[in-house]
Amino acid sequence: MTLLDDNRLFDAEPKAHAVAQALYAGIKDLPLVSPHGHTEPRWYAENEKFPDPAQLLIVPDHYVFRMLFSQGIRLEDLGVPTADGSPVETDGRKIWRVFAKNYYLFRGTPTRSWFDHTLATLFGVTERLGERNADAIYDLIAERLQRDDYRPRALFERFNLEVISTTDAALDDLKWHRMIRDSGWKGRVVPAYRPDSVVDPDFAGFGGNLDKLAEITGEDTGHWNGYLEAHRKRRAYFKQFGATSSDHGHPTAETANLLPKEAGQLYDKVRTGKADARERALFRAQMLTEMARMSIDDGLVLQIHPGAWRNHSPSMLAKFGRDKGFDIPSRTDYVGALKPLLDAVGTDPQLSIILFTLDESVYARELAPLAGVYPSLKLGPPWWFHDSPEGMRRFREMATETAGFYNTVGFNDDTRAFPSIPARHDVARRVDCAFLARLVTEHRLDEDEAHEVAKDLAYNLVKQAYKL
Amino acid sequence: MTLLDDNRLFDAEPKAHAVAQALYAGIKDLPLVSPHGHTEPRWYAENEKFPDPAQLLIVPDHYVFRMLFSQGIRLEDLGVPTADGSPVETDGRKIWRVFAKNYYLFRGTPTRSWFDHTLATLFGVTERLGERNADAIYDLIAERLQRDDYRPRALFERFNLEVISTTDAALDDLKWHRMIRDSGWKGRVVPAYRPDSVVDPDFAGFGGNLDKLAEITGEDTGHWNGYLEAHRKRRAYFKQFGATSSDHGHPTAETANLLPKEAGQLYDKVRTGKADARERALFRAQMLTEMARMSIDDGLVLQIHPGAWRNHSPSMLAKFGRDKGFDIPSRTDYVGALKPLLDAVGTDPQLSIILFTLDESVYARELAPLAGVYPSLKLGPPWWFHDSPEGMRRFREMATETAGFYNTVGFNDDTRAFPSIPARHDVARRVDCAFLARLVTEHRLDEDEAHEVAKDLAYNLVKQAYKL
Amino acid sequence: MTLLDDNRLFDAEPKAHAVAQALYAGIKDLPLVSPHGHTEPRWYAENEKFPDPAQLLIVPDHYVFRMLFSQGIRLEDLGVPTADGSPVETDGRKIWRVFAKNYYLFRGTPTRSWFDHTLATLFGVTERLGERNADAIYDLIAERLQRDDYRPRALFERFNLEVISTTDAALDDLKWHRMIRDSGWKGRVVPAYRPDSVVDPDFAGFGGNLDKLAEITGEDTGHWNGYLEAHRKRRAYFKQFGATSSDHGHPTAETANLLPKEAGQLYDKVRTGKADARERALFRAQMLTEMARMSIDDGLVLQIHPGAWRNHSPSMLAKFGRDKGFDIPSRTDYVGALKPLLDAVGTDPQLSIILFTLDESVYARELAPLAGVYPSLKLGPPWWFHDSPEGMRRFREMATETAGFYNTVGFNDDTRAFPSIPARHDVARRVDCAFLARLVTEHRLDEDEAHEVAKDLAYNLVKQAYKL
Repeated sequence: MTLLDDNRLFDAEPKAHAVAQALYAGIKDLPLVSPHGHTEPRWYAENEKFPDPAQLLIVPDHYVFRMLFSQGIRLEDLGVPTADGSPVETDGRKIWRVFAKNYYLFRGTPTRSWFDHTLATLFGVTERLGERNADAIYDLIAERLQRDDYRPRALFERFNLEVISTTDAALDDLKWHRMIRDSGWKGRVVPAYRPDSVVDPDFAGFGGNLDKLAEITGEDTGHWNGYLEAHRKRRAYFKQFGATSSDHGHPTAETANLLPKEAGQLYDKVRTGKADARERALFRAQMLTEMARMSIDDGLVLQIHPGAWRNHSPSMLAKFGRDKGFDIPSRTDYVGALKPLLDAVGTDPQLSIILFTLDESVYARELAPLAGVYPSLKLGPPWWFHDSPEGMRRFREMATETAGFYNTVGFNDDTRAFPSIPARHDVARRVDCAFLARLVTEHRLDEDEAHEVAKDLAYNLVKQAYKL
Repeated sequence: MTLLDDNRLFDAEPKAHAVAQALYAGIKDLPLVSPHGHTEPRWYAENEKFPDPAQLLIVPDHYVFRMLFSQGIRLEDLGVPTADGSPVETDGRKIWRVFAKNYYLFRGTPTRSWFDHTLATLFGVTERLGERNADAIYDLIAERLQRDDYRPRALFERFNLEVISTTDAALDDLKWHRMIRDSGWKGRVVPAYRPDSVVDPDFAGFGGNLDKLAEITGEDTGHWNGYLEAHRKRRAYFKQFGATSSDHGHPTAETANLLPKEAGQLYDKVRTGKADARERALFRAQMLTEMARMSIDDGLVLQIHPGAWRNHSPSMLAKFGRDKGFDIPSRTDYVGALKPLLDAVGTDPQLSIILFTLDESVYARELAPLAGVYPSLKLGPPWWFHDSPEGMRRFREMATETAGFYNTVGFNDDTRAFPSIPARHDVARRVDCAFLARLVTEHRLDEDEAHEVAKDLAYNLVKQAYKL
Repeated sequence: MTLLDDNRLFDAEPKAHAVAQALYAGIKDLPLVSPHGHTEPRWYAENEKFPDPAQLLIVPDHYVFRMLFSQGIRLEDLGVPTADGSPVETDGRKIWRVFAKNYYLFRGTPTRSWFDHTLATLFGVTERLGERNADAIYDLIAERLQRDDYRPRALFERFNLEVISTTDAALDDLKWHRMIRDSGWKGRVVPAYRPDSVVDPDFAGFGGNLDKLAEITGEDTGHWNGYLEAHRKRRAYFKQFGATSSDHGHPTAETANLLPKEAGQLYDKVRTGKADARERALFRAQMLTEMARMSIDDGLVLQIHPGAWRNHSPSMLAKFGRDKGFDIPSRTDYVGALKPLLDAVGTDPQLSIILFTLDESVYARELAPLAGVYPSLKLGPPWWFHDSPEGMRRFREMATETAGFYNTVGFNDDTRAFPSIPARHDVARRVDCAFLARLVTEHRLDEDEAHEVAKDLAYNLVKQAYKL
């Protein structure tokens, strides 16, 4: 197997290299804990075979098709489904050939390393993908996908996953989670409470969603207290299926802490569609604080993923729908934005909030200083565009000196690309080991401590932070 | 020759060092392609000898005199001409001595490396410049500048320049370009369309410039459609002389996409001097989108160089005029600013826009994610204050993982300091090789691929991106 | 002694390592110059023994207790005094045990390295602090603190301090400084003029402070000119005790340059408590420019430390008071903010302003370009959260190419943690040597020059910049 070097991502300098190797040897076989991601619970529930290689590896992966699109390749030619149902390429082999021919575009990107890792470890590919061997590799993968040991549950076990969290809408009945539980399979798949559709007044169908929320919970969502109680009930329902966290993907990190009466009045406006843009944003802000209060009560860990400008291109949204690679980070402030929430509940050590960012300029300036003092705050790992070797290195370099290691929470793969999960965790483990090895060789950390930290970053911290 | 080490800018670690050496060996003799810069077409047209060493190397170089000024040396003593004609030092030797005595101030700066490179390779200097040898080196340079093989065209050829672009005002008659073309000399010097004087209502003499634009083109610039048509004609005129690009240096990256009727009304206000500051900014924003539309039609590549606060010191502007080292970067946003333009034409693969920035915090957060999906966008190289080894390294580290290499466009020297051109390209090539070598030694890229990428970054990408 | 490796913080790569060692050997014994900090002049005046280890090393160190608090440990249990006088832990040994048990939290932070350095060099500790040896180390330190050679003056001499500046309120009578001067002790301890209480209308007791200012100076602070004159007198008073600088810690870097009449009117409003928030901010902005004018006259160096959001948590402020680890950096702009001041006096080489920041994104974008041209501006070292190996490295990497080394001012320890001063200077010296070593091994700087720069950064520049 020549696609993957055993010592990839370690510093070439021999001393640091040797330390990194030793650290990595101590953690490489630890189980994977995936506390936040977007795989489908249905996969584990039904345990059906995955379709062809393109449908598994290309079509659903926005990292892949956004890069190809940036170089002038049409999404239709990559099989990406259209919103209006106009036809797209369905021949997996043809899609795969386009990808293989353009594989050089991914040089230097994490997608390349995830792909190489997947091809090598999951499918036994031994040479670099390219136009020349596209068909042969396609056939190889297609053949494997027909085997029972490539079904979702088998992969879950092969990946050494101890637990994985999906992300589920507040109104979801969690039927797939129920089916998993009832199946007797021992794989641990838990949901996470993602209430966008009933928290964000700009979400499509918001009013109807509140009606549905009332129906499911038996609470009167016509007024503020009933609405809050409905959330509490849904959170409790999610907890029955193992949920330990909620997740919030607002455009900004704004929070608010209105008086109950004000919040109730704001809800009335939002509920009846009379709120203006400022009020709708204020409502989202208020709901983060409400969710934090509920977290203190029910123990769900609160994740905040702010700062993505979703669906930046209206024409692409119209044609292909959401999540098609057109979400772009924007500048995100935390110090002022989180203050109302922190003023309300931020010094409560019972509360656990995990902060993410797409704006690296805040690591050293805002996030590390905040997490380095507020007991309720922890720092999530580098996210999305920053889930990469350089991104991870910068995170450790910019956050550690002020927040330390123990205000961080280990790795999130945060992916719907199921086969890439082991690759992603492996990159994180290697980059952390390389970072620790530098500290050791520069005599900033003792080697025995580095071993301990490596294990904490790879396994212990995520379990503690997410209560898994 | 001890001023320049053959392996400068390569990592000291032996494995990475060796890879960088090998990569560099494969590209160091490739021709220079200079797609954007500020050398004078007159030099190549007239092919006159350059004046004394100070007038060639010190007086026109804002990197040089801003540093000296920051340490209390008067610009007058450096021969920088005043706007009011008050006297300045004219004795080149005296100016040179001030520079040589203070050469230590440039330690760790790119100016130092460009200077050493120029002194060593162009003038055969073998020891470090200082007070002690100032006169001897001055004499050496002065003597060389009298030789025919130090005239502009000879230097162009010695520098192995395949093509160079100047930057030319929209109203320029391109007479020097015509003279070059008519001379029979084979050096390829092309213009670029820089329409500030007829696009920016705040530009000195804007109204009169529009009159002149009408006169040159035979179009009626009294109304919007005539004005746009005049631009089209000027662009076509520039193309006759080989232009492949336009260039836009707005204070921000703001764009707009007004309805034609609104745009026409805005133009009427701007044209008649009745527009307020907000409207003048809106007009500049609108014109970026108009230029993008014209680019789709005529194929000129659109360069956007935003974010410089020009002439930050009014007293220095009054005394010495523009471009005297007092342009300061400021925070620049792209994700919202470019949206109107991108909504209009951003997904058209026929359009080619090259984005620059003086705000490195946007590389990973905004520019790479934008260029990594919009087919019209490419990333220009590190610019101005960031045209430096650390600046280039940060650019690759922060942009590559999301945008890849193939959404970047190779190097721009962007300089009016003609003798420094080979030094600048050499730094870029070395830094890119060092970056690639790190990827190779960390097993993130195969060595054969790195060789290909090195050639692409040094030569192929710039030719493709700029259609040269 | 195994706690400290002789070659800590140097690059592991042998060539760079050897150069760094050689550079460091040339500067490690240079005297410490501490031009800005927060030690108490009373310590040097009275020369009393320090109390127990916890009171010396834990209780007053906000870096220490903020980290422990972030992990759920109550400040009361760390002996941090409450504002309302409610009881806190007073048993030093108990406090120390909590710290020792949680020492692992500081892995990778500068606090850890400062502590190890202090324990090793000042107290002879040879093994890593932990729960197991907490008591033994406590006893060892406690015993030393009873010795005369651990009194403040003895430590000052042992630390090889050539001079240290305290920071003193404008209304301070400097009686401790007088006592030091009168004592005949040869240690040089100078004050710095910090006028927040009489410059910031939001400062507690502002009106009364102005009355006191009038009383002390004999000037009528009821009007603008008298107020300014009072400042001049206080500055002159501070200078009598050796002050060479003033210090200003505004929330932003905003400056203003009102006409004298406008400034007088604004002062009247501020003086009488009638100014609104905008006007109070404008007054602070105006006062930076006034202080700059006074600096030109009296030669005091002006330090600006902007960008901290002080006392971010109101509940913690109410319970524990100021300076309890809840100051959080926020985004800070300089290019526009400083313009009024710079327009007024920025090109005067007699003026010396030292700029600090908590927002690293401005190093390359704003601060280096400004300091690289304005003769009045110099860059202070990495500050507070950025006073760390990675922070220092980033500062050199981002500032040097545009500002050079000679627009920076060496190191500030800026601390009230007296025993940590040698550790902090040592880190700065080592990191600078490591940075220079990389430049040398990459052939960007000659080794003889690097030796010169190393001495300048460690000793000469700070003396020049602060006129010490």
